[in-house]
This record gives sequence, C-alpha cells and structure tokens, in this order.
Amino acid sequence: MSLTTIQLKAPYLIFIGDVENPTFAKTGAGIVQWRPELVAGQLRFAGNSLTLGVPDMTVQEAAKAGVKSIIIGVAPVGGKIEGEWLKVLEEAARLGLDVVSGLHHRLENFPGLVAATEKSGSQLVNVRTPAQGLPVGSGKKRSGKRLLMVGTDCAVGKKYTALAMAKSLQEKGVKASFRATGQTGIMIAGSGIPIDTVVTDFVSGAAEVLSPDNDKDHWDVIEGQGSILHPGYAAVSLGLLHGSQPDAFIVCHEPTRPTMEGFPQATMPTVQQCMEMTIQCGKLTNPAIRCIGISVNTSRLPAEERLPYLEKLTQETQLPCVDPILTGCEKLVTQLLATND
Amino acid sequence: MSLTTIQLKAPYLIFIGDVENPTFAKTGAGIVQWRPELVAGQLRFAGNSLTLGVPDMTVQEAAKAGVKSIIIGVAPVGGKIEGEWLKVLEEAARLGLDVVSGLHHRLENFPGLVAATEKSGSQLVNVRTPAQGLPVGSGKKRSGKRLLMVGTDCAVGKKYTALAMAKSLQEKGVKASFRATGQTGIMIAGSGIPIDTVVTDFVSGAAEVLSPDNDKDHWDVIEGQGSILHPGYAAVSLGLLHGSQPDAFIVCHEPTRPTMEGFPQATMPTVQQCMEMTIQCGKLTNPAIRCIGISVNTSRLPAEERLPYLEKLTQETQLPCVDPILTGCEKLVTQLLATND
Repeated sequence: MSLTTIQLKAPYLIFIGDVENPTFAKTGAGIVQWRPELVAGQLRFAGNSLTLGVPDMTVQEAAKAGVKSIIIGVAPVGGKIEGEWLKVLEEAARLGLDVVSGLHHRLENFPGLVAATEKSGSQLVNVRTPAQGLPVGSGKKRSGKRLLMVGTDCAVGKKYTALAMAKSLQEKGVKASFRATGQTGIMIAGSGIPIDTVVTDFVSGAAEVLSPDNDKDHWDVIEGQGSILHPGYAAVSLGLLHGSQPDAFIVCHEPTRPTMEGFPQATMPTVQQCMEMTIQCGKLTNPAIRCIGISVNTSRLPAEERLPYLEKLTQETQLPCVDPILTGCEKLVTQLLATND
Repeated sequence: MSLTTIQLKAPYLIFIGDVENPTFAKTGAGIVQWRPELVAGQLRFAGNSLTLGVPDMTVQEAAKAGVKSIIIGVAPVGGKIEGEWLKVLEEAARLGLDVVSGLHHRLENFPGLVAATEKSGSQLVNVRTPAQGLPVGSGKKRSGKRLLMVGTDCAVGKKYTALAMAKSLQEKGVKASFRATGQTGIMIAGSGIPIDTVVTDFVSGAAEVLSPDNDKDHWDVIEGQGSILHPGYAAVSLGLLHGSQPDAFIVCHEPTRPTMEGFPQATMPTVQQCMEMTIQCGKLTNPAIRCIGISVNTSRLPAEERLPYLEKLTQETQLPCVDPILTGCEKLVTQLLATND
C-alpha cells in the first residue's frame, strides 16, 4: 500500500463519549464487528450505558497498554466536537495517541489538538481528507485478482458485502484483502482512500493505487461507491470501476426503493441494468469482467417475501443471489472461485 | 451564471512578455481569435517580434483606457513567473487590474502580487482553481437546449468545434452560448468551470451549474473534456455528460492515432464506439440524446486523403462529418437545427 493512502495505527481505543443512541455509533460498532483483534477498548463518559462489548479504558490506561490511536467511533449529537470531547481527545494526543476522525470538521481546526500533537509527535488523521500526489489512471494491467462491489444506488450494502466476502475468502484459505473507499470502511480496514473526495482527474488513478500489483492468486475485495446509474455520483463509480479493473463484480441492491435515496426524480435502476452498464464500461480496463452474483439487502421486505425474492432474482439473472445477513454469502464465494480461470 | 463559476472582467490586456514562440502563446491567440471585441491590447517586452495583431499597450495605458484584466496569454519558457514578468503583473494589480492566470503556480504564492491587490482591491484569478460550494448533481431536467462535445481522446478539437458551433449558431440568429470547461476555454469565454479540477462527488453538479435553466430555444454549446473511453479521464467525461444532460452531441476525433495521446497502452476507440457509449450513458439524464455528427481534425492526414476520409466516415455513420478548419461546420449546424424538436 502506497503512501498516498490513509493508514491507521492499531491497536485502537474507540471513543464513544456521551453518545447513547447506537444509531450514531455505527462506525465504532463496525470496527468491533469486523476487526475485534485491533480494538483494545472503548471510552465512555460516566453514566453512558451504550457499549460496544469491549473493555472500558481511560486515555491513560490506553496509553499504558500500548494503544496507538483513539478513533472517534460516533457522530456527535449536535455535529460538533466540543467540551468534554475535546478535553479527552487533547489528553490522548498529549499522551502520543493518533486522533482519528471521519467527521466533516477537520481536526486541524482545533488549536488545542494541534498543540497537543506537536508536543507528543502524534498525528491528526481525517479519513475524509483525500490523499495528495495521486496519479492519473493509466489503465495498465496489474497482477492479482480484483472483486468490486457495484450498486443500484448508494447505501445498498456494498461495504457490508465486501467485508463479508473478504472474511469468507480468508476463512477458506484464499488470499484476500478488503480495500476501503469510504470513511467507515477506512476505519474498519485501517487504510484506504476516500474515493469520492478525490479530484475527478485522479479518481481512476486513486483506485489503481488502492489495489496495487499483488500475488497472482490474491483477491482484492473492493468496497464500491455510488452507482454507475446515479445522476450525482456516477463519475465516482466509473472512476472506481476503471481503476479497479475488476475480474469480477457483485451487484448490490435494495429492492423496496421506487427512486434513489434522496433523489426522488431518479428512478431506481434494475439489477440487470446495473449489471449491463458495469460490463459495458468495465470492459475498457478488463475485457474479461464478469458478474458473479447479486447481494440484496432484503431487510425492508416482509419476512416471508425475502427468500422468495432471492429465488426469483436467481431465476431471472441465472446467478447466485444472497442477502449476506439473512443467508450468508457462501453462494457468491463458490461462484467466484468456480468461475475463476 | 452562478457565483460558483469563474468570471473574468473585460476588456483585457493580453500579456505576452518575452515569449517569442507562437506555440506558447496559444491562449492569447485563442482569445484574440474568438473574442476580439474583448481585447484592448497586448503587452510585449522590448524587442519581442511575436504579435497577436492587436495594439501594443503599457500597463499604464491600459489602466487609463479602462482595461479591467491583464491575462497571462503565454506559457513562460521555464514554466515560472519571475523577474520582469512579476514587475509588470504587480504594477497592473497596483493600478486595479485583475491578474488572470492559467498556470499551475497559484498567483497567491507571490507576496508582491497579493500586496498589490490588497491596496487596489483588484483580484487574482487562477482559472485552474475549482469553484467552491458546488452541489451534487441532481439529474433534474432544466429548460433550454444543450449541445455537448465528446471525444475519442483528449486534444481532438472539442474546444475548437464548440467555439465554431456557437459562433455559427449566433451568426444564424440562433440563441447560443459557449460554455467553457477548461482553462483556455474559460479565458476565451470569460467564465466557466475547470471541470477536471472538481472533486468527483460534485463533477456532475458542476456541469449542472455551468449550463443553467435558459430560454426554451437557447443552445448551450458545451466544451467537452477527455473521453468516456479514456482509462484516466472517463470519470470527468461521464460527470460532464450526466450534468450537461445534452439533447445533442458531436463526436470529436483525430484519425491518425493508434493509441491515446500519452497512453501507449490504451487503444484509440472508434468514432462509433464513442458514439454508442455516449448514448448508453447519456440516456440517464436525457433519454432523447442524439448524435448530430462528427468533427475530425484531419490536419495530420496527407492533404489528398482529408476530404475522402470525411466522405467515408459520413457513409459509415450516416451522419455529417466535418473538419471545422478545412470544411467549416455548417453541415453540423444544419443537422442540429433540422433534427431539433
């Protein structure tokens, strides 16, 4: 992985503070779910009953235990870092921990934090900030295999599916790495590039940097972004597709939306439309690109309709269709490895 | 045009300085060719025989004559702004002229220039700098008509064709505006957005801002960028295509390249491939998108092969094919207006 990607130092202390609603703690929960071995503990303010199921630690205890980073694992209720939050983060920085944030406000805007890092040599890491020095995409073929998540919309399970696929491949003894392209994914992976923040001229180049040359039998499992059929974000998806030069892709889908989330004027595309457009465009940098299946978030369907929906889609597409939470993603792994040259 | 686009103030003084090679004065020459009415004069250093064919002026004469901007119309030989250049630009800023640059170095990096503008209230304008506050593209239909240039590669005549089309439409009494998406185009148009410098999340939104709602019978003629089949720049082209929601497009082509310029690993696509992919992708925001013809830069073909090449391509595509310099672009204008609903 190159210097142009964000890199987090483990082990982590996950900062929860006074956030009590688990909906606002998805990032912290995701790190604990997918990377428990990197998490030393959590830091909650007195009286907060929300827990990620890991040991409670103060900043001082974390520093003594060799923790390298404090990660803001929650979204603050008012959207702002202030008061007690700042005191704790400054103390962590003073004790040499990197402070990692996915919030919109850049950590450098807090003079107390900057001063604390200057004394200790620790870093402020904003995972929303794009890397510098990225190249223009070349389209040159790289060694190793790549599996990309694509979607019919934003927020359809691309990150979850990629994490589940990488884990499943690793459990089968297949060499595989999850490659993160968004802020939560980067916090879970410990590295990555926030691809939608990259200047357009360099977006396919960023994707090339993210999945560099690798062993011939190694799979990069790449978190997707947006949708190639999205009126706002298709450029992100296309740059990621071209730079990833995927051998295989999975279409991720949410079946109950009539229109794209937050875009009432944009009709939701079908799985088949997304598949066809991905092949059309993906051929440019990998003529052998193939779809290995569909990952559906069926949670908004009535319970009794979920499995029938997957069966119907399997018949329509002649490809394995799963809900990674409901059914697991074994069928996709089998298809990936069975169709591998 | 919104505040999020770059805006230049006319009339202009074109700075040539000590640059004697016309190849490095293309920007200045382009402004004089396409916007002679905005150019008050040129500023050459003593002994320089290069001329744009407009009156010579000192900075003092320009200020007295009401000139509003000094535009760096040349690329400096060593790539740097220094010495006598800086003195002249500082003097212009001190006298209240905006200083306009398309060079990589930002004008704000020169303390003398900054100080001069602070006293006079003039502006430093870097046309490579992207606008702030751009929205995410919505895909919502806007009023007015749009004609987009697309290309089989970079540097195939998209800007020239757009300028020629806009001029030809205006001469016929059709309401038309050239919309610039690159630095030289912006200097010629006096406004625009350097689309490839925009963060990917906002690139289609930038294109929406660039060609806002307009009269029903008004044509925005939009300068294209890159190629939708380019391994490095396709994301730029797709964002521009989606945001422009063009009713019509022209494919621009250079017929002698086996591979894309500067990308020896990337086979040059055919005109037909570019046309088909543009229609496939463009349908998302304008289902009625149509190709109205092809604009070819035939200058690298042997003279006797140029017109036969255009004829052959016309037969193959069943669309008008022109070289705007060799044949003019009347056939494209006729086709555009004949197929207009």
